[in-house]
Amino acid sequence: MQKNYFDHNATTALDKKVLGVMMPYIEMQQGNPTSQHSFGRHARTAIEEAREQVALAIHAHPSEVIFTSGGTEANNMIVHGAAIKERESTLVRSNIEHPCIARPMEAMKHQGWKQALLNVSQDGVVTKEAYKNITAENVSLVSVMLANNETGAIQDMALLHDFAKEKKALSHTDAVQAFGKVDVRFDELHIDAMTLSSHKIYGPQGVGALILNKRSDIEPLIYGGGQEKNLRSGTENIAAIVGFGKACELISESVKTTSTHTHELQKILEVHLKDLGAVIFSEKVARLNNTTFFAFKDIEGSTLLTALDKKGFAIASGSACSSVNKEPSHVLLAMGIDEDLARGALRISFGQRNSVTEVKDFIETLKKELQTLKQLTAIAA
Amino acid sequence: MQKNYFDHNATTALDKKVLGVMMPYIEMQQGNPTSQHSFGRHARTAIEEAREQVALAIHAHPSEVIFTSGGTEANNMIVHGAAIKERESTLVRSNIEHPCIARPMEAMKHQGWKQALLNVSQDGVVTKEAYKNITAENVSLVSVMLANNETGAIQDMALLHDFAKEKKALSHTDAVQAFGKVDVRFDELHIDAMTLSSHKIYGPQGVGALILNKRSDIEPLIYGGGQEKNLRSGTENIAAIVGFGKACELISESVKTTSTHTHELQKILEVHLKDLGAVIFSEKVARLNNTTFFAFKDIEGSTLLTALDKKGFAIASGSACSSVNKEPSHVLLAMGIDEDLARGALRISFGQRNSVTEVKDFIETLKKELQTLKQLTAIAA
Repeated sequence: MQKNYFDHNATTALDKKVLGVMMPYIEMQQGNPTSQHSFGRHARTAIEEAREQVALAIHAHPSEVIFTSGGTEANNMIVHGAAIKERESTLVRSNIEHPCIARPMEAMKHQGWKQALLNVSQDGVVTKEAYKNITAENVSLVSVMLANNETGAIQDMALLHDFAKEKKALSHTDAVQAFGKVDVRFDELHIDAMTLSSHKIYGPQGVGALILNKRSDIEPLIYGGGQEKNLRSGTENIAAIVGFGKACELISESVKTTSTHTHELQKILEVHLKDLGAVIFSEKVARLNNTTFFAFKDIEGSTLLTALDKKGFAIASGSACSSVNKEPSHVLLAMGIDEDLARGALRISFGQRNSVTEVKDFIETLKKELQTLKQLTAIAA
Repeated sequence: MQKNYFDHNATTALDKKVLGVMMPYIEMQQGNPTSQHSFGRHARTAIEEAREQVALAIHAHPSEVIFTSGGTEANNMIVHGAAIKERESTLVRSNIEHPCIARPMEAMKHQGWKQALLNVSQDGVVTKEAYKNITAENVSLVSVMLANNETGAIQDMALLHDFAKEKKALSHTDAVQAFGKVDVRFDELHIDAMTLSSHKIYGPQGVGALILNKRSDIEPLIYGGGQEKNLRSGTENIAAIVGFGKACELISESVKTTSTHTHELQKILEVHLKDLGAVIFSEKVARLNNTTFFAFKDIEGSTLLTALDKKGFAIASGSACSSVNKEPSHVLLAMGIDEDLARGALRISFGQRNSVTEVKDFIETLKKELQTLKQLTAIAA
């Protein structure tokens, strides 16, 4: 059976061109980049070239790029690293952050730090009002994601910047979902730190970066041999870093085309979803062009997901990263969405390779599955 | 020019068979393993199979295997994770641990924990006496590496076990260098936790594991979506994990052959090194069969390393992982070796593909280079 993959916010397939540049580093004897012999120096050069590619794609300086094992690590790194610098300070985040921002902050709470939450509106955005409600004085870090992984809602980075400046706090954005879908320019965001992930932009898994401007001083999360300017120790994952660099180069060339393409698919999808009676979350605010988070009243999300999966359509129920637990999406609950409706939530996130035909096929299949489910519900009632 | 790679303790080349099992996971669209659709479930199955391969290779239970981004992260994880459980407790380690054990412990010291050091003998081993010298009562963790990365000296794990039991502390060994070179059986070591790395056993970079027995309870280092039983969050690096699993399977089949082979090379090398007047460190104690750490009096290590590199031989000066700093090996200083001699230290670590011919060629080249260096020194004096 033909498989249609509509879950690009969870992970993307490796771009063939990315694989091409990675292969020599996978196949041949590599040196440890800290080794002094020629194998080691060759590996070092490859890493520095990739660092330039990442920097160029987001308009940062190469020295601001710290390679990590992925977005989760980078997010944990900024939370832990900023907190340790100011004992008992307050960590501020929105209440729709990914668990890899929320949970390390909770963990620091147990260690004596404080946490303050920026509540989102019913559209899923942090308003100026929400920032005003934070009364804490000794704020060490404020972190608000650039685009939400579930709704795709895009946050106002100017508000983040202004708040951080006023509080003399470090500002950070998790740009994992935004990067590659909208133009992300670190230099124009005027924030201190930003998280990127490779496998969301058609790069390899197991690599990401924390972008940290030169003024910012944090403690490492992972100590050891002193790699990445002492901020992230451990033998560098050369092939993955090289691939990530190439993926950044490619995505910055293709971001406009991809965005236009997925927007077209999104528009077709959403017209039909609404015809079928779906609620689309964060519909009224600036959103990623590839992401549609929706629900049908009285239809359980995971039941519909399973039915669609059997018909060859891979979609998500809320965030893949937390779908191990069966709770309704914390993002929707934060937006004040009714718990029953939230349980029906499904996410479609398009990517470069999806086509109009796939979307139309999906709509047809969805119609049939909805009918079947409604009949079953009617029989059960 | 033919390149001879003698730096397998730094990193190894990927085994072709490992690459073979990885490729489908690199090339094709993969799901996020926490996703509920078929792509996700397929990825989940692959990870669980790899977990069984790792467990089988070291005689542990699959549920005891926690995948990490590498050995450095696993070592940081056990230090941080055990420490957080007992505020202000004492962390014990040998004074020849890798920086990724030593430095996180130092960092915890700044956060209010204590640290106690087990001093090694002049042969580089932790004796029963050294354990007796630790007077601290509230010990949360004791970590002693199974084999040292520089000297190859193998530590007595029974002493580690006895000490940890007496102190009711968690016991941990960094087995990154030992694994694949000697038979490592987690069940027979009777310790609580062990670190493994993939790229030292002909597996891919960017993956490793913390083996943690079921009785042990630690806090995570990296929080988020709750992967790896909540102990290590972040989207799993599927291809790397699959490769690591295969590498474990292959190495457990080949460890005896490899060890016999590298031992033969080591014996040839060391006879000649001694003829040329080299001091071999940890020569008198149980050592890895592939590792020779040596120095020539009055010959600077990095000069000789560069000369040999130009002739096509890649060897190391002390640990690659810390060769970014130019200090003499902390391992040799801990052993009480004279600082001048320590500065001359070079490490050769053989691997599966090295040959007797390569070693003999190396000896010939070394003789010539030593002669040249001695002449230059004589002219300068």
